[in-house]
Amino acid sequence: MALNNAAESEQGSQPQIVALAGGVGGAKLAHGLARVLPPGALTVIVNTGDDFRCLGLAVSPDLDTVMYTLAGVANPETGWGIAGDTRQMIGMLERYGEPVWFSLGDRDLATNLLRTRLLDHGLPLSVATARLAGALGVTAHLLPMTNDHIATMLDTEECGVLEFQEYFVRYRWQPRVKRLWYEGANAAQPAPGVIEAIESASAIVICPSNPVLSIEPILRVPGIREAVQRRKEVTIAVSPVIHQAAVKGPTVKIMTELGLDPSAQGIAAYYADLVEKFVVDSQDQDIPVPPSIRKRTTNILMSNDADRERLAREVLEWVGSKT
Amino acid sequence: MALNNAAESEQGSQPQIVALAGGVGGAKLAHGLARVLPPGALTVIVNTGDDFRCLGLAVSPDLDTVMYTLAGVANPETGWGIAGDTRQMIGMLERYGEPVWFSLGDRDLATNLLRTRLLDHGLPLSVATARLAGALGVTAHLLPMTNDHIATMLDTEECGVLEFQEYFVRYRWQPRVKRLWYEGANAAQPAPGVIEAIESASAIVICPSNPVLSIEPILRVPGIREAVQRRKEVTIAVSPVIHQAAVKGPTVKIMTELGLDPSAQGIAAYYADLVEKFVVDSQDQDIPVPPSIRKRTTNILMSNDADRERLAREVLEWVGSKT
Repeated sequence: MALNNAAESEQGSQPQIVALAGGVGGAKLAHGLARVLPPGALTVIVNTGDDFRCLGLAVSPDLDTVMYTLAGVANPETGWGIAGDTRQMIGMLERYGEPVWFSLGDRDLATNLLRTRLLDHGLPLSVATARLAGALGVTAHLLPMTNDHIATMLDTEECGVLEFQEYFVRYRWQPRVKRLWYEGANAAQPAPGVIEAIESASAIVICPSNPVLSIEPILRVPGIREAVQRRKEVTIAVSPVIHQAAVKGPTVKIMTELGLDPSAQGIAAYYADLVEKFVVDSQDQDIPVPPSIRKRTTNILMSNDADRERLAREVLEWVGSKT
Repeated sequence: MALNNAAESEQGSQPQIVALAGGVGGAKLAHGLARVLPPGALTVIVNTGDDFRCLGLAVSPDLDTVMYTLAGVANPETGWGIAGDTRQMIGMLERYGEPVWFSLGDRDLATNLLRTRLLDHGLPLSVATARLAGALGVTAHLLPMTNDHIATMLDTEECGVLEFQEYFVRYRWQPRVKRLWYEGANAAQPAPGVIEAIESASAIVICPSNPVLSIEPILRVPGIREAVQRRKEVTIAVSPVIHQAAVKGPTVKIMTELGLDPSAQGIAAYYADLVEKFVVDSQDQDIPVPPSIRKRTTNILMSNDADRERLAREVLEWVGSKT
């Protein structure tokens, strides 16, 4: 395949591509990459800053969104959760007068019950994730950024300090964010294989996920940012915003509240120390980017599997090209 | 109500009735008692020898069968589980290659998740049970026999030593039982309120549950058998067998394997140190019972709510009568 020539020329017959991803947008591009690459050639390093315990269960929203998407079982309407899932358990909880604000579909419960059991038996999250993803037929390597606990925390005007999922799901990202931090990040270690994958990658793709909520937590795990920076010449990012609007979720709102520029231009600047190439939507073709970054323009909206594959091919071509 | 006259004459306006119950048969009569008694007048002491952990969840099959039945939400076809429940979680587990042999319906999961969370927060099973049952509108007092762990264990010809649910569900009570014991019973204490309820009861009803699998574990909690024996004159048992066949489940098979007489006659003898009255089905009207026991005959099959109420009324009348 022409699109892999550059990567193949560096690494021999098996290119090794690393993607950094958070939720739905990142999962879609990771899915495209998995579909156009040989089995086993893709490693997805996933944000776990949103992980929390719900009803005693170890919930990993971004890992599951990526896993379900790569396995082809994601709910196509929401982008998260499992297609055809039901809410009988949640309905019964409500009957007990114990509603939970977090969505736990009945099928989704199987994932969370199995993960919780594996973790409670002392296995690290990376091993639990590999088992679950493998059982669903995912051939990409799915890696949590860390096996340690990191919690993305937000101090808000209206509701005080919130854990990420409380902010995101319970309060539908409506409170105004004053400050954001990654609790536990300084003491965390990258999950086994994360640094090695980055170091040996023929290309690194920062997926179109929220820079501060999805990508930054990954980079805050000690060693990961530095490892990516050392591979800057093969790193490419795809903008999560189109024409100053997030494709999905609170990217623009939260970046604005934190005093960051939420345009494609601002996000290019945000990633300036990490990437040499940046992909923006055709609607943003005129935005200026820092001089160290080469801009590429295409349709970055992924409405279907063909879109995901096309964007993945383009990204892989561009990251390997010298111009 | 005429049927309560005897009990009322002893205790004033509020009779206190205690029922000992295990699974489906016991739950049905407990339900009948709850329907014909004033709210709060019934205390059901339930077997927990079948309790176990499944997928990390604290499962209490008999407590839930009684609770769902008293709450009017039990699956009418099986007698256990919740009406209208689905098996999406179990189906997804199978997709993960992790089938479980125990049935955990999606709605049923809410019960087990809440109970597990309450227990893991350090609350005793009796408190967790009261919360769950109260939330479902159960006005009877539902008490586990103990807050300690007791496990009904079976040594079988074909499969060696099994925990009860393995024997009962996984192997469909087909292995031949050589020996049966109640692990942890000697070190257990009755749950708070159990002894008090027995001591102050105007009547005690041993429900039509399996004598060795459901009733005996309750009696093995130190202090309970002795407390019931002291109230023998107000204690009545209802046969769980009709014409040498169990209404449901392995009563006849397991009693035979253990060298016990599984007829109504044998069960009357089994309870001879505990009851003064014993209710048998009309088909068993000619069976002899020990001389210390007065036999009552009626239709003990409970096919609908009316049957449950009728049998409950008859049992309450008989236990209070002097003849």
